[in-house]
Amino acid sequence: MKFPRRAIFFGRFQPFHKGHLYVAENILKEYEEIVFLVGMSTESHTERNPFTAGERIEMIRLAMKEAGFDLSRVITSALPTLEIHIASAHHAIYASPHSEAIFIGNPIVSQILREAGFNVIVPKPYKREIYNGTLIRRYMAEQNDKWRELVPKNVAEFLDSIKATERLKNITSPSERHILGEENSLD
Amino acid sequence: MKFPRRAIFFGRFQPFHKGHLYVAENILKEYEEIVFLVGMSTESHTERNPFTAGERIEMIRLAMKEAGFDLSRVITSALPTLEIHIASAHHAIYASPHSEAIFIGNPIVSQILREAGFNVIVPKPYKREIYNGTLIRRYMAEQNDKWRELVPKNVAEFLDSIKATERLKNITSPSERHILGEENSLD
Amino acid sequence: MKFPRRAIFFGRFQPFHKGHLYVAENILKEYEEIVFLVGMSTESHTERNPFTAGERIEMIRLAMKEAGFDLSRVITSALPTLEIHIASAHHAIYASPHSEAIFIGNPIVSQILREAGFNVIVPKPYKREIYNGTLIRRYMAEQNDKWRELVPKNVAEFLDSIKATERLKNITSPSERHILGEENSLD
Amino acid sequence: MKFPRRAIFFGRFQPFHKGHLYVAENILKEYEEIVFLVGMSTESHTERNPFTAGERIEMIRLAMKEAGFDLSRVITSALPTLEIHIASAHHAIYASPHSEAIFIGNPIVSQILREAGFNVIVPKPYKREIYNGTLIRRYMAEQNDKWRELVPKNVAEFLDSIKATERLKNITSPSERHILGEENSLD
Amino acid sequence: MKFPRRAIFFGRFQPFHKGHLYVAENILKEYEEIVFLVGMSTESHTERNPFTAGERIEMIRLAMKEAGFDLSRVITSALPTLEIHIASAHHAIYASPHSEAIFIGNPIVSQILREAGFNVIVPKPYKREIYNGTLIRRYMAEQNDKWRELVPKNVAEFLDSIKATERLKNITSPSERHILGEENSLD
Amino acid sequence: MKFPRRAIFFGRFQPFHKGHLYVAENILKEYEEIVFLVGMSTESHTERNPFTAGERIEMIRLAMKEAGFDLSRVITSALPTLEIHIASAHHAIYASPHSEAIFIGNPIVSQILREAGFNVIVPKPYKREIYNGTLIRRYMAEQNDKWRELVPKNVAEFLDSIKATERLKNITSPSERHILGEENSLD
Repeated sequence: MKFPRRAIFFGRFQPFHKGHLYVAENILKEYEEIVFLVGMSTESHTERNPFTAGERIEMIRLAMKEAGFDLSRVITSALPTLEIHIASAHHAIYASPHSEAIFIGNPIVSQILREAGFNVIVPKPYKREIYNGTLIRRYMAEQNDKWRELVPKNVAEFLDSIKATERLKNITSPSERHILGEENSLD
Repeated sequence: MKFPRRAIFFGRFQPFHKGHLYVAENILKEYEEIVFLVGMSTESHTERNPFTAGERIEMIRLAMKEAGFDLSRVITSALPTLEIHIASAHHAIYASPHSEAIFIGNPIVSQILREAGFNVIVPKPYKREIYNGTLIRRYMAEQNDKWRELVPKNVAEFLDSIKATERLKNITSPSERHILGEENSLD
Repeated sequence: MKFPRRAIFFGRFQPFHKGHLYVAENILKEYEEIVFLVGMSTESHTERNPFTAGERIEMIRLAMKEAGFDLSRVITSALPTLEIHIASAHHAIYASPHSEAIFIGNPIVSQILREAGFNVIVPKPYKREIYNGTLIRRYMAEQNDKWRELVPKNVAEFLDSIKATERLKNITSPSERHILGEENSLD
Repeated sequence: MKFPRRAIFFGRFQPFHKGHLYVAENILKEYEEIVFLVGMSTESHTERNPFTAGERIEMIRLAMKEAGFDLSRVITSALPTLEIHIASAHHAIYASPHSEAIFIGNPIVSQILREAGFNVIVPKPYKREIYNGTLIRRYMAEQNDKWRELVPKNVAEFLDSIKATERLKNITSPSERHILGEENSLD
Repeated sequence: MKFPRRAIFFGRFQPFHKGHLYVAENILKEYEEIVFLVGMSTESHTERNPFTAGERIEMIRLAMKEAGFDLSRVITSALPTLEIHIASAHHAIYASPHSEAIFIGNPIVSQILREAGFNVIVPKPYKREIYNGTLIRRYMAEQNDKWRELVPKNVAEFLDSIKATERLKNITSPSERHILGEENSLD
Repeated sequence: MKFPRRAIFFGRFQPFHKGHLYVAENILKEYEEIVFLVGMSTESHTERNPFTAGERIEMIRLAMKEAGFDLSRVITSALPTLEIHIASAHHAIYASPHSEAIFIGNPIVSQILREAGFNVIVPKPYKREIYNGTLIRRYMAEQNDKWRELVPKNVAEFLDSIKATERLKNITSPSERHILGEENSLD
């Protein structure tokens, strides 16, 4: 059976930003379809993973549509948080339809996938010093509007509609809390 | 923000058959987009769940394309096997982008979703006495070609390409094994 | 430090019925306090475990109050569903405050607790042929009012307030479904 | 059915200290009953969660009794450690009997509960710079008797009876171990 | 690097019987070392898995020594209960040191391992109608001494030393309990 | 029944180094057999746990053979990553055949085992400032050959055969990544 030529883009997409879009655009120059595999789908509302899997799929579709892609070329799937182990590589692959390559930036997971025998491509990040999730989440928590330029326009609008900066602010530990080394304000 | 009008179709799709297609067609008469939420995505190769999440997403896309739908209207996501609890209803909802209704046939899960306050629709099954997964899996395990007419043509071709009947035959306990009440031939 | 003399009563309480009450009454003749340890607290809405942990704690308190006990002698705790293993015995004990004995009817768990060195008492069931949870759940699923006499009056009233018979009916597989050997009406 | 007016107080209570007591006293001025929901009940003997769920329930009852409350107004339940996700909010609620509000200090969990639609109240902490668990656990690990004034008298006595300071000292990494960045002295 | 020629023998060994021994003897005719991989190591005290991983390792060593093998050729490892999924095959392999083949009787797991690309050998069982674990466990539960001839002499002696027949009897549901369809005698 | 006199040596063995060997040699002066219980067996390819359980068992056997021990005295078992709780102590014990003592360096786990009533021995580490896993893993990640002298010769050869330094380098976050506080290079 002949499958469309596909590549998996495995990430957390917290949130989906212009760096992700740049990688996806390059993938779709070479492949017919792209599988966005949303990792750590069962964690949300933490500093590292503020958005649910459903919200991340929404952002992916909004961004890809805004960038002019036909969404029939965009496939989404989700992978629960797994213990880090070489066998977990196979969970990622089997959560996706048949694909020829897997693009991933995370060094641990790419090492695991490579040792497990998969065709791993570490994409060249696009202006990583500005387009990176940690920075964007920090701006959002600080209610600093700089994050708006770092994500596609529709993603920004979506994030506003779910009051994302308020969520980020509330779940991000203020610095003075770090002094006492505690996570819980009523510890 | 205005979202496309969407409904979730929550099932296991083991495999995707014409009964599923019938429900999906009805959903797409009323809604702009459909979210296929693949349940028990972390189980595979059992009698009840023989196919991986990736294989099930493949079948969904093949069938919907064959039926003439623009795949840009088809969204897929996956939900790991969860302990049955009313809180799990929320996992299903948050694994999907914003939707107005959830279609589901499983009576336990529909009761949970309903009590949790969601808009649940139990679809009228289409000729359920023939279009049902248990029967199809049994035919496949018995190498009885009747299963071929119960799934879309492209799905049948895909199942052949992954040697599905051989898989089903090997993972299905032959009846004499039941006599001893054991699952393991070298118990 | 001197602790009140306590015993743990470990069960699922699905629902709390007069057989449970009989055991609890006997425990409180001998001990100052009783710890109701609600097992499989993270499963609900299944045929075997239809009620949530919170609902079960509600029933325990309603029944014990109705029976005239001072609720200051009643302690509740909850244990998630655990894999069956001798180490799990220790999870049960450490989920409870200091106690002198553990009353439990389940033969597997009582064997585990006994081998783990705890003081296990298998209570003599009270008219088990009528006061047993399986039978009560079946009556409820069949909308047969006989269940009402098998639980304390306040528990019956509570179960009505949460529409328990409707829940039971919906989550219990009708017999014709068993013929096809499937759990899912849209399988 | 008319339920007693209740509020949930959700925390880890590691250990139960005077700041917790202050919140509980305020809750019981307004509500008839209080549900202490013990979070992360399946972790113990770590720096962050040194005490078992049973030990924490013991401390709650000792402290509430010492403060003059009728223990019939005190309900306890336990919640296992869960992955942080908005669906987990519902696990907390369903582990408790019917309640009108949930008091919680943890900013992540309160954001989750609020988004999930629950009536969340973030209690004003009482002299948080001295009555906080992290500080108390540090004093205990350092065998510094200052912790004794920060918990109710009976709780201090209980902690002595289980040799809590010795436990804390043993499970708390000495500072020189941090230099090598290792958790394990025989790594 | 040159490794000893090894094969994995993957099973539950509940208990280790003469059928297992027969397979192991054949493996050691061809391979220098054998890896006994104890599956479902985190379940014990159930009808299907009555013995702990430690007890099963004990039986393996007793039997292999009694059969005259040098225990330096015998390697043991343990695999926790995993959800059935093709990725789990890799967990089995990575729990074992480098091996050339994996012997396994369970049809589901052997299909998974085969599809995952491993060299799977389904051993010819030895007089399976008498040397099988289900039968042996049933004899033990019924206190029928026939089980003694089905296991190596030292294994029988070990099982006596841990009072295995008493354990089996207590954890095995008596038939009248099946009539009510319940697992719990105080349900 | 008379068992060989055994002690458990519980560790992560990431990798097995000369400090571990020193402890094992001392154990085998006193006991007939040693049980290497490989902890966190279900994590691999992380900075803290780079090697799989199978690779760690391989290293244990290589080192013990090189040191002149008859491998018939060496038993291996594996324990999955568990939530830290006093009940987990029992999982460790029941994963091992009958033993008289358990040697462990981790302060949290040794406290748990001691409170659970086991005979715990904290071995005196051998030149811990040089023979420790954190340091060895750091040298390997930095491609600094000093690690070679810290492990037995055969272990070094094995680590070369699996390209361990390359694995360590790839999974270890470079320091500049820490500045942004992110784990994911394409975050």
